[in-house]
Amino acid sequence: MHQIRKPYLLFLGDVTSDIFAKTAHGLKDWCPEDCVAQWRLPDATVDLGLPDLAPGDAAAAGARSLVVAVAPIGGALPAHWVPAITMAVAAGLDIVSGMHGALADVPAIAAAARQHGVALHDVRQPPAAIPIATGRRRSGRRLLTVGTDCALGKKYTALAIAREMQRQGFDATFRATGQTGILIAGSGLPMDAVVSDFVAGAAEMLSPDAPADHWDIIEGQGSLFHPAYAGVTLGLIHGSQPDAMVLCHEPGRTRINGYPDYPVPSLAEAIQGFEAAARLTNKAARVVAISLNTARLTDTQREQAIAAATAETGLPAFDPVASGIAAVVGGFAGALDHAA
Amino acid sequence: MHQIRKPYLLFLGDVTSDIFAKTAHGLKDWCPEDCVAQWRLPDATVDLGLPDLAPGDAAAAGARSLVVAVAPIGGALPAHWVPAITMAVAAGLDIVSGMHGALADVPAIAAAARQHGVALHDVRQPPAAIPIATGRRRSGRRLLTVGTDCALGKKYTALAIAREMQRQGFDATFRATGQTGILIAGSGLPMDAVVSDFVAGAAEMLSPDAPADHWDIIEGQGSLFHPAYAGVTLGLIHGSQPDAMVLCHEPGRTRINGYPDYPVPSLAEAIQGFEAAARLTNKAARVVAISLNTARLTDTQREQAIAAATAETGLPAFDPVASGIAAVVGGFAGALDHAA
Repeated sequence: MHQIRKPYLLFLGDVTSDIFAKTAHGLKDWCPEDCVAQWRLPDATVDLGLPDLAPGDAAAAGARSLVVAVAPIGGALPAHWVPAITMAVAAGLDIVSGMHGALADVPAIAAAARQHGVALHDVRQPPAAIPIATGRRRSGRRLLTVGTDCALGKKYTALAIAREMQRQGFDATFRATGQTGILIAGSGLPMDAVVSDFVAGAAEMLSPDAPADHWDIIEGQGSLFHPAYAGVTLGLIHGSQPDAMVLCHEPGRTRINGYPDYPVPSLAEAIQGFEAAARLTNKAARVVAISLNTARLTDTQREQAIAAATAETGLPAFDPVASGIAAVVGGFAGALDHAA
Repeated sequence: MHQIRKPYLLFLGDVTSDIFAKTAHGLKDWCPEDCVAQWRLPDATVDLGLPDLAPGDAAAAGARSLVVAVAPIGGALPAHWVPAITMAVAAGLDIVSGMHGALADVPAIAAAARQHGVALHDVRQPPAAIPIATGRRRSGRRLLTVGTDCALGKKYTALAIAREMQRQGFDATFRATGQTGILIAGSGLPMDAVVSDFVAGAAEMLSPDAPADHWDIIEGQGSLFHPAYAGVTLGLIHGSQPDAMVLCHEPGRTRINGYPDYPVPSLAEAIQGFEAAARLTNKAARVVAISLNTARLTDTQREQAIAAATAETGLPAFDPVASGIAAVVGGFAGALDHAA
């Protein structure tokens, strides 16, 4: 499992659009305390509002890792970024990349890393030794975010719940299953890159035995209703053995994103499907709340959507961005604590 | 996708137990017409009853590929087999391996293959470029074998159905999803080794558009009721878009093999689960027959088990090894043809 040294120097290369800097913005938003500075090449126009520091100065200011926090066009490392990265290596920083190509496959970077004794983390790469799932029940409690589709807030919801539970005094850990989540958490497993036979085993590895009152808040992936990714979702559910699931949904989205022939299920259908799937490895699994992505709605529409979701399901509903989640999290966490 | 040149010279190394020669026996049983000869090192005691030919003689007799048809202890290629394999390369044979290590990672074999222009096939390795599933419906018809557990006859059932359909004049192709199946078919995709995001896409690639009356008979993997492998199964189901499923089951097996905490589902539960899962990508998907593995039963018990399965499900039941499948296959294939 990736274990990344914080805090970070965020490398922005020479990108000129925030579209390619989504990861950088995510880190700045979710773990500002871990972001010491940004480092930009001369042509960059993206600005996170962090101090601009070159690797040597950032290391002196406490940075331990350089994060390549932008997605170059095509996904591959541009040749002219290599000297910048080797400069960071020479300053003693570990290098963390979410790009498709492996850092260690770039000879200059691999040689520099060996010379300076720093680690290279490709957060798209899963660890080598993932066991086959055992199906054994583990101690501690687990919450998994699930969704009626992809790309509607499963990571954001898990992060917001973990943070709110910590604020309310619960012992809670966010568990990352995708590259941005791994960078935010500093550890995790990229589920979509795990060989299929090992997905449930990877999920078991990600949230090991824990004290009885500990909560792992696990970032969901894909959707059981997605024609390409449902298998990943099912393996993640089975290995996670969630006691609780929070169902993420975007009101008004009627078709699976990019799959116009595939309808988004109703909340009731989705709850039935996820609970049936999860009960293979945890008989007590249930959906406890609905997280709505209402970014495209007016305030009035948002309130209506939240009320409608609760009316349809009998469950508390919230938007983790636009409405407070304190009451919802306190409610279901308390209820599950009581039930346990 | 692997495309292997037949016929085969079966390499048995120096193994002394049929346990390590399961693949060789499977090939001898399922495609005897593709097995020109066996080649054994001096200490071997396993005998398939094929002519013993060294690579040069086998090539002269028509062999195109040497199949490493035994599993060495530990799964890795023993060093003393390397000269034997390079000798086969020098005779112009492609080399086909189901072992864990890649043939091309053995320098002597890689160099010899380059020199002689032969192909190296590691049937555990999926192809590099597998697309994400599109969910688009494809022409032609598809049957997938599914199971209440692993290791109870999904491959055997698919092979038997494909063969029987061909015998009855249907245009049917067996589609292999595991290494032994790939060797038998000469092509296929090892689903368990595909990265999880691509499993459904691999299944789409495996059974492409076909004439309206063509049947792909697809080898199933895992089980929706297995705590480690259900994700692979679901991706395979979604990408296969089966019109028909044949449910494989072993009467008397009450616990998932190796997972004593996990019960084997009833036939009715399994049918409900597989049909619900398959209908995401094919609304007409249904289980059409029950394939029973009755190897451990007496003849009387077998007849009772077959009658009981039919009584429970209302579907035809058969044992593809012990009872004829002609009537069953003719029945459901005809019924589906009629419905289409």
